[in-house]
Amino acid sequence: MAVESYVVVHNIAKRHNVGTLARSATAFGVSELILVGRRDFNAFGSHGSTSHLRFRHFHSLLDARSFLKEKGCDICGVEITDGAVAVNEHPFKRSTAFLLGNEGTGLSAKECKICDFFIYIPQYGSGTASLNVTVAASIVLHHFGVWAGFSERTRDGNKFVVAERPVKQGGKNFCAESVEALIEERKSRRENGSGVFDDTANGNSSENLLDSLFIDE
Amino acid sequence: MAVESYVVVHNIAKRHNVGTLARSATAFGVSELILVGRRDFNAFGSHGSTSHLRFRHFHSLLDARSFLKEKGCDICGVEITDGAVAVNEHPFKRSTAFLLGNEGTGLSAKECKICDFFIYIPQYGSGTASLNVTVAASIVLHHFGVWAGFSERTRDGNKFVVAERPVKQGGKNFCAESVEALIEERKSRRENGSGVFDDTANGNSSENLLDSLFIDE
Repeated sequence: MAVESYVVVHNIAKRHNVGTLARSATAFGVSELILVGRRDFNAFGSHGSTSHLRFRHFHSLLDARSFLKEKGCDICGVEITDGAVAVNEHPFKRSTAFLLGNEGTGLSAKECKICDFFIYIPQYGSGTASLNVTVAASIVLHHFGVWAGFSERTRDGNKFVVAERPVKQGGKNFCAESVEALIEERKSRRENGSGVFDDTANGNSSENLLDSLFIDE
Repeated sequence: MAVESYVVVHNIAKRHNVGTLARSATAFGVSELILVGRRDFNAFGSHGSTSHLRFRHFHSLLDARSFLKEKGCDICGVEITDGAVAVNEHPFKRSTAFLLGNEGTGLSAKECKICDFFIYIPQYGSGTASLNVTVAASIVLHHFGVWAGFSERTRDGNKFVVAERPVKQGGKNFCAESVEALIEERKSRRENGSGVFDDTANGNSSENLLDSLFIDE
């Protein structure tokens, strides 16, 4: 079976970071972005996909772990623990899901508990105590791609070629559902007064969130 | 002589990106961030430093190149050109300055012209044509640090230790000037009606810019 990579996003506070993370995940061939928790990215809804990257939502870390273990994944925490191996040493064995701490605090005890092993990104300067979470994720995903020997994307001049949007796969598989369909569904639910989104009041609408995913920044 | 790394920032449009870039540059032991051009980062002024990372400003790419060549640096463009080598192959020889395209467009012909060689970051997915500029820079700087064998920073538990702020080195060397002194100087110039900053009208004050450099995001 082909090796795959996943990213587990747990309680990342800034929508901006989820967007940049999704962009890197797409560039580095990640299979799915796994969203865990109850914060901003509830705006993603339970399941959905952008054109090229699938999203999946779980309410708890343990649920996410069960899903990933069924897939045969290792769960790798990105954190400076005692036994952590430098990412450039490529301590990977099989399909791997990467779990990153949210901004500022690193992985919690609960988060560490679902991890099979840990990697860290060596730092050399002395002026900052941690990297931006999407920067850290991107470095890790880049290395995993090198280790896994993922095929490089076709280039056209000095840009990588963006593939055609995959064909919609119908409504039964939530993960193949298009962004457009998801937005339509939500709009219709809101219009019918059955909106269940805690994000409408403060302007974090799912439309804005999804729109912002691949903004070039 | 010890190997050093530099980052050349030319016309990056979003202040936010310069801030995150500075954070990564600090984490990966970059010696100086070289700002070239006339846009937002005029807000940095001609010369200045944060506590742990030096900034230097040039008006033209050729001026920046002359400075770097005097330092014995190679200038490496991060761009998918025909002869570009994958960054993970570490095609480095000596101190190197990295030049990145601004958001979206990649390196211009003028920018390519000052480069001695090119590297690129392999991509595997199919959904996006380029990486965020600070993500790309961070991956490159990480690899350069691995190649150069920079000493890893001391850790304290699961955080890297942030060093004491370096002692101010007096007023003669602009690059050792503290942020605080720079801000004071500007405030005083503005108060005396001799403000020359095109950024005050639209709220991009140097104070805000500098303050935002190391915000945890």
